[in-house]
Amino acid sequence: MADTDLKTVSSTIVHKNPWYQVRKDEVIRPNGEKGEYFIVETPGPSVIIVAMTDQDEIYLVKQFRYQTNSWVWELPGGQAGKEDPLQAAARELQEETGLVAGSIKAVGTNQVMNGLVNETGHVFLARDLTIGEQHQEGDEEISKVRKFPLHEVLQFIKEGSFIDGQSISAMLQAFLYLGYTIEK
Amino acid sequence: MADTDLKTVSSTIVHKNPWYQVRKDEVIRPNGEKGEYFIVETPGPSVIIVAMTDQDEIYLVKQFRYQTNSWVWELPGGQAGKEDPLQAAARELQEETGLVAGSIKAVGTNQVMNGLVNETGHVFLARDLTIGEQHQEGDEEISKVRKFPLHEVLQFIKEGSFIDGQSISAMLQAFLYLGYTIEK
Repeated sequence: MADTDLKTVSSTIVHKNPWYQVRKDEVIRPNGEKGEYFIVETPGPSVIIVAMTDQDEIYLVKQFRYQTNSWVWELPGGQAGKEDPLQAAARELQEETGLVAGSIKAVGTNQVMNGLVNETGHVFLARDLTIGEQHQEGDEEISKVRKFPLHEVLQFIKEGSFIDGQSISAMLQAFLYLGYTIEK
Repeated sequence: MADTDLKTVSSTIVHKNPWYQVRKDEVIRPNGEKGEYFIVETPGPSVIIVAMTDQDEIYLVKQFRYQTNSWVWELPGGQAGKEDPLQAAARELQEETGLVAGSIKAVGTNQVMNGLVNETGHVFLARDLTIGEQHQEGDEEISKVRKFPLHEVLQFIKEGSFIDGQSISAMLQAFLYLGYTIEK
């Protein structure tokens, strides 16, 4: 355990499905009390892609999310599993949008939802975009792919019509990577 | 189902623990194929708080996250459960930082991790801050509470030393709410 006096005394898989498993750990806290954690474990990191044109437009996909019973505009992305994250990002980008990126760079990583799941999100910036062929996976339901000017995307976030948290954090990481300023 | 032809044919709780449950749904896709989803269901929305001083400093907490086995700087926040999100935000802020907010406003919501969990995150902006008493919950391990100038927090995100995705998205939502500009 990283720099903590919390001790793990047992570890058991209590649920498993094709996309993730739940691990139950029994622990002894630094104060001597017993505790437990239920960690959702996904097969690997996720990838998310800020695909930007030279005119500062960003590609978004509109996807049906069963978990929240809603159609949501998002950045393209998905699970990398055991695949190299950069390759997974290029693959997901093409599958979901048809775009082929001449340049794709790692912007940074984040912990997606660290009170629940062990997943790390890898954020990529894709540029020099050309249109290829779109191939959706069977369990994906993408109805639209569209590019929007950056200032419109920011307006969508501000007014609450763009609500995908993972996409919002990825965008801030990409903007900072690009040296954009954020000021009053 | 919101505007989709996907049909749910069964719904079963397949795992349950004190913090969340996993629901398995069997569905028929629009193309007639069978499919399944495993939805993590938390007891309610989560809340996250951008607590900002008049000098544009932001309060961060350093917390041990068992799920990622790491100490992570984050915005204060937590599960609201059945509590009113605004009240939960004020409570979490005081529990984790000791701060009492003279003003606390809803900035917006987001879907925290909509490929996995049904949770909505409510983002709040807390101002007019005074120092009260800190009360941590039993399963929380917070080692530090500190305020940092906004430009330093942005630098931490850029350099990869601030990696909590939920906090990063909440900050962008709060900055846009405050009318900050994001420019090349």
